[in-house]
Amino acid sequence: MRVSITGVAGFIGCNLAAALLARGDEVVGFDNLSLGSKSNLRALVGNARFQFEQVHLHDLDAYGDALRRAHAKRPVDEIWHLAASSDIPAGIADPGIDLRDTYMTTFNTLAVMKELGIGTLAFASSSAIYGDHGERSLSEDTGPLFPISNYGAMKLASEAAISAALESYLKRAFIFRFPNVIGVPATHGVVLDFVRKLKATPGRLQVLGDGTQQKSYLHVEDLVNAMLFIRARAGERLNYYNIGPGDDGVSVRDIAQAVVRAVAPGASIAFGVGNRGWVGDVPRFAYATEKLARLGWTPSLSSAQAIQKALAQIVAQESGK
Amino acid sequence: MRVSITGVAGFIGCNLAAALLARGDEVVGFDNLSLGSKSNLRALVGNARFQFEQVHLHDLDAYGDALRRAHAKRPVDEIWHLAASSDIPAGIADPGIDLRDTYMTTFNTLAVMKELGIGTLAFASSSAIYGDHGERSLSEDTGPLFPISNYGAMKLASEAAISAALESYLKRAFIFRFPNVIGVPATHGVVLDFVRKLKATPGRLQVLGDGTQQKSYLHVEDLVNAMLFIRARAGERLNYYNIGPGDDGVSVRDIAQAVVRAVAPGASIAFGVGNRGWVGDVPRFAYATEKLARLGWTPSLSSAQAIQKALAQIVAQESGK
Repeated sequence: MRVSITGVAGFIGCNLAAALLARGDEVVGFDNLSLGSKSNLRALVGNARFQFEQVHLHDLDAYGDALRRAHAKRPVDEIWHLAASSDIPAGIADPGIDLRDTYMTTFNTLAVMKELGIGTLAFASSSAIYGDHGERSLSEDTGPLFPISNYGAMKLASEAAISAALESYLKRAFIFRFPNVIGVPATHGVVLDFVRKLKATPGRLQVLGDGTQQKSYLHVEDLVNAMLFIRARAGERLNYYNIGPGDDGVSVRDIAQAVVRAVAPGASIAFGVGNRGWVGDVPRFAYATEKLARLGWTPSLSSAQAIQKALAQIVAQESGK
Repeated sequence: MRVSITGVAGFIGCNLAAALLARGDEVVGFDNLSLGSKSNLRALVGNARFQFEQVHLHDLDAYGDALRRAHAKRPVDEIWHLAASSDIPAGIADPGIDLRDTYMTTFNTLAVMKELGIGTLAFASSSAIYGDHGERSLSEDTGPLFPISNYGAMKLASEAAISAALESYLKRAFIFRFPNVIGVPATHGVVLDFVRKLKATPGRLQVLGDGTQQKSYLHVEDLVNAMLFIRARAGERLNYYNIGPGDDGVSVRDIAQAVVRAVAPGASIAFGVGNRGWVGDVPRFAYATEKLARLGWTPSLSSAQAIQKALAQIVAQESGK
């Protein structure tokens, strides 16, 4: 298979590319290197089946040219669209960021697929499309959908555009709704944030919010396995799945304590006020993953195990090891 | 109250403006006059409390300038955002139409509201956000939301952006999910379409689809009453309502026969194949309106009565009477 990955230089994109190359696929990767970085591609660039193009995906002309060239060389079978702005607070301050990087990248991906007749799209969606339902279990068919961040809004807009495209020219779609994903190369997220804060001020860790926020976490290796499993096994025209561990998750307080133990034992932890780390942060959600379990996949690591594994990896990453 | 209406020169916008003026409000109306027309404003322009600005709402600079000027004159209390592309098939052929006219008009409305501190938004959403759920009753909390047209996708994207805005700067929102709305001044829709076709070829009416599509219809006068009722009575920060008659609707076959009787008795009716008039057309849906009934509002006309009233009005309109 010849697969194009958008956002290939990001945390998840580079892990996905490595997995596809390992099973023998060709990968054409696109990234504007704004949040992703070339260092994330180091393990891939030596592979003759890997090709990388730096391009702004919100620029339809540039993106179209790049994909047209790649497709002319040898037809691209499917596109895995992962590119997005992963900085949720930035997108709340400036809605233009998620419009451009989280939605227009999808809009343009669909436009080029239509032009070139590429029929299959796999899309990285998010639990953020659901908004804040409190303690209610979030299954794939939960409604209403009122996201509380522009990131969630533009992921939902992307799903909707994909759904509409399936009615006319698109042949198949896979929508993966990601939970919090952790692992390396870490570029953002609570574990990396805490590790860096503690390195900057070793005696004290300042936490946004009161630490009671509790979320489930999936290790990126499990995430990539889940996506490949769904791609291989799900047989609908539109396949949409929550991906995550089915557990109750880990509190921010527990993560803070684990990071303190690993990085600066004895440091104090100062909590903020309220149960939201920032505007647009869903404090707690119960992610239903029975649909994926019925398809036959469950993660190898629980949320707590994923945190432990990622923490060790991130500490090593930040030590330059 | 000083209210701004986007899409004021459209079918619904001009009816809403007339109702607001009649109760004593000031109305600042915006429209690019691409689908709406100045003739729809004839009854309003003599009113000293009505002001009209022709502006492209997808152009943030132009829209911002126009609203800033109106707001500086006397503060605008709230915005009723109705502007959108109402041509669903056109938006399927070219997704850029709904991106520009159905979504970016919302994005820009929110941007200007944030800048000017206008806290209340009323938004014309649509049953199209639900997609095709077959015979399943569509309540406001139905999921999943997979629209089958770009129009529906960009209305859903608009709802999502409004929801995210409520988490930061927007104070209140009213989301009205419209059904098929009929009445005058008719600019599009099945009744007008049939009347015009029969006038062009009086002996024969060609119908898209097999005529079994069955939908509910609301008269625009009932729609405007419903919106004003919800605005006055609903007390949440985010208020979202299906608006429609709770009945089973009227089939396209019945509408075709009514139009033939009114316009060209004895003409033959030729049906197409399949139960979709066009790609993106939801053939049948059961619109749950219990939430609005619980708030205390029900329409004065059933779907069949609304069709009869609108048909008479449209025949008069098309005769130039």
